[in-house]
Amino acid sequence: MNETLATAENAEEQLIEMAHRARKACRALGLATPAQRTDGLRKAAAAVRTRAAEIEAANAKDMAFAKEKGLSPAMLDRLLLNADRIEAMASGLESVAELPDPVGQVIAEWDRPNGLHIERVRTPLGVIGVIYESRPNVTADAGALCVKAGNAAILRGGSESLHSSGLIADCLRQGLAEAGLPEDAVQIARTRDRDFVGAMLGASGLIDVIVPRGGRNLIERVLSDARVPVFAHLEGLVHLYIHEAADPEKAVVLAVNSKMRRTGICGAAETLLIDRSVAAALLPKIASALIEVGCVLRGDAAARAVMPIMEPASDEDWRTEYLDSILSVRVVDGIDQAMTHIADHGSDHTDCIVTEDQAVADRFLNEVDSAIVMHNASTQFADGGEFGMGAEIGISTGRMHARGPVGAEQLTSFKYRVRGNGQTRP
Amino acid sequence: MNETLATAENAEEQLIEMAHRARKACRALGLATPAQRTDGLRKAAAAVRTRAAEIEAANAKDMAFAKEKGLSPAMLDRLLLNADRIEAMASGLESVAELPDPVGQVIAEWDRPNGLHIERVRTPLGVIGVIYESRPNVTADAGALCVKAGNAAILRGGSESLHSSGLIADCLRQGLAEAGLPEDAVQIARTRDRDFVGAMLGASGLIDVIVPRGGRNLIERVLSDARVPVFAHLEGLVHLYIHEAADPEKAVVLAVNSKMRRTGICGAAETLLIDRSVAAALLPKIASALIEVGCVLRGDAAARAVMPIMEPASDEDWRTEYLDSILSVRVVDGIDQAMTHIADHGSDHTDCIVTEDQAVADRFLNEVDSAIVMHNASTQFADGGEFGMGAEIGISTGRMHARGPVGAEQLTSFKYRVRGNGQTRP
Repeated sequence: MNETLATAENAEEQLIEMAHRARKACRALGLATPAQRTDGLRKAAAAVRTRAAEIEAANAKDMAFAKEKGLSPAMLDRLLLNADRIEAMASGLESVAELPDPVGQVIAEWDRPNGLHIERVRTPLGVIGVIYESRPNVTADAGALCVKAGNAAILRGGSESLHSSGLIADCLRQGLAEAGLPEDAVQIARTRDRDFVGAMLGASGLIDVIVPRGGRNLIERVLSDARVPVFAHLEGLVHLYIHEAADPEKAVVLAVNSKMRRTGICGAAETLLIDRSVAAALLPKIASALIEVGCVLRGDAAARAVMPIMEPASDEDWRTEYLDSILSVRVVDGIDQAMTHIADHGSDHTDCIVTEDQAVADRFLNEVDSAIVMHNASTQFADGGEFGMGAEIGISTGRMHARGPVGAEQLTSFKYRVRGNGQTRP
Repeated sequence: MNETLATAENAEEQLIEMAHRARKACRALGLATPAQRTDGLRKAAAAVRTRAAEIEAANAKDMAFAKEKGLSPAMLDRLLLNADRIEAMASGLESVAELPDPVGQVIAEWDRPNGLHIERVRTPLGVIGVIYESRPNVTADAGALCVKAGNAAILRGGSESLHSSGLIADCLRQGLAEAGLPEDAVQIARTRDRDFVGAMLGASGLIDVIVPRGGRNLIERVLSDARVPVFAHLEGLVHLYIHEAADPEKAVVLAVNSKMRRTGICGAAETLLIDRSVAAALLPKIASALIEVGCVLRGDAAARAVMPIMEPASDEDWRTEYLDSILSVRVVDGIDQAMTHIADHGSDHTDCIVTEDQAVADRFLNEVDSAIVMHNASTQFADGGEFGMGAEIGISTGRMHARGPVGAEQLTSFKYRVRGNGQTRP
């Protein structure tokens, strides 16, 4: 593995060369049969299993480097690969292998009065750049999902995971080659040079879309600097709105699960809105259940009037994605105020209403303009796997091309096939 | 109408203000009923008819300005609005009004094992910037298509059409207002300041997508400078490939129609490829039919050996979009060489095979990676109207979001609606 630190110039040169190879590989991969792509991913899973000890050894080098750099225990845990995690990675590759193949799928077809038959058919999207941080298993997940949809992936992992990610990418390449597919459909930057990220972000025309996976700083940099389309969300400022016609039990259960199941994921609720007419009766039940499992509540004046145990919420709280056991609570005067609050403070990610009033629920689902809008369900379902997509490369809050969970289907483009029998245009 | 020339700074300020109003209007328009949007466009058509004399008068001012500037007769003809053209514009608005409304359409829906019901539903795309040249009727066509899909349009017409386009935009705004819809869903730059185009191209986050309509210089500038996604094609380097199993009559008829029906449109064929095994028998028939209707042919050596009347083609010819009565002709050794030629020289717009061999046709349709691939049909069908989309705002050769003809459906995004009955995530 080449670990020489690249200069800015050769980061760009490296990327251009990789992108050209990726374009060629993508074309061959898109023309391969679905069975071949499936086979390539299965063989990649087998390679991961066969080379598990090698991967662990590479990971040990990464762990030593990371400890030397003084990474936090949480970061070290993310970086760590052990036998269980390597097996999980292999079976993850197999799951992606078994997903429905989107390439060649006819999305729509119709006949014209002149007899032309027109089909809109899915094609690979092209070259996908994935920029991620410490978890080396993203190499397998993201690489596989790109390959499933006939795309080529250019991966740039965290500098800490250089050895592990490089070896995992090698397993994917090995699987592709064994299935007679171009191994350059998966390429990884084998450098710690940060200029490589800059080269990717500027690679308009070479990379078709960039998917960043990681913390806020990474996403912010990618969104602000990219000259290439990006599938991403900056934050999940998720709201759970308890309408006056909410079933009290559902309200309690959904609040606890939406906030506390896992606090660090983007679908975790960050603000609870509750109708004034039911605040006195319902808020104490919801708050107590949350406090019992360790959640800190920050309320507005009306919420604190009901539950003085809450800390006071500042304006900043309505704009804060805690990713922690903290929930801001605001009392609202009905659905209009709730939707205005969401429009003013939300992040277009996921928002949910709890109510037994179907008409009110329909209005919320229709009018709230977020990638995912929910009725009587935990916001933690905001996930490609939970949506039945099998796997996701991320969740997008953008409006172009992909929105919400980005699965294999969202990593495709389409073209039109037109069949005639000699028709000319009058 | 404010005609003061804006400085760079106030072009940007103007745009920001327009974009904020557009965002608000788009939200209201997206929440209106399909019937209201239809009504708004019908009333806009009525306004165009009622104000036809005003429009003609405004157009006379534009024509005087354009003559003073010394515009070519062809440009003057594009700029001209007479009673017939104004009526065509009004009935065009009515056609768009009657198109199926894409907003709210459920594209996909499924149930999860836990009982969650998930729908993917179309939503407006947002704020669409349209930059166009002399034809003032684009104001009506493009504005209406944006409105149909619940979007707000920011229009920037050619400086020659300032008065006519401004008045047509006023008619659209009037129709919207009469239907109880926000008139700011259609806004037009009432300035000849070229900096306004620059402000639009840089308006990342304010404008969601830009559609340029016009000549090559405009499209090149937009594609190179835009920090906003663009739906466009730079050129239509369209190929017609006559395979050895082509029906001779179809080959002749399709060649003549693909090249000569109208030479100035992007779907017009620019290069004819023909298999060596049938060149001697078939090329003379095709070439004679083309020459008879005024087409100049430029052939490679093998083509000229059969038809010495052809001019010699240079390498440049294979890369030239003539948009004129000129066709380059190359003899190839079968489908592989034909597809390689198309991959090397094409523009990913539209390419067609003429053959009676279904397997060969399928291979061509599958492997040629252009927005539109055709079998036994005139390439001049590459058009949203001919595809049955009712209207198009342009044809895109990009792979993100929209590809091929861009109609109302392609001017939408989507969101997910998730309905549960209290499900929590384990």
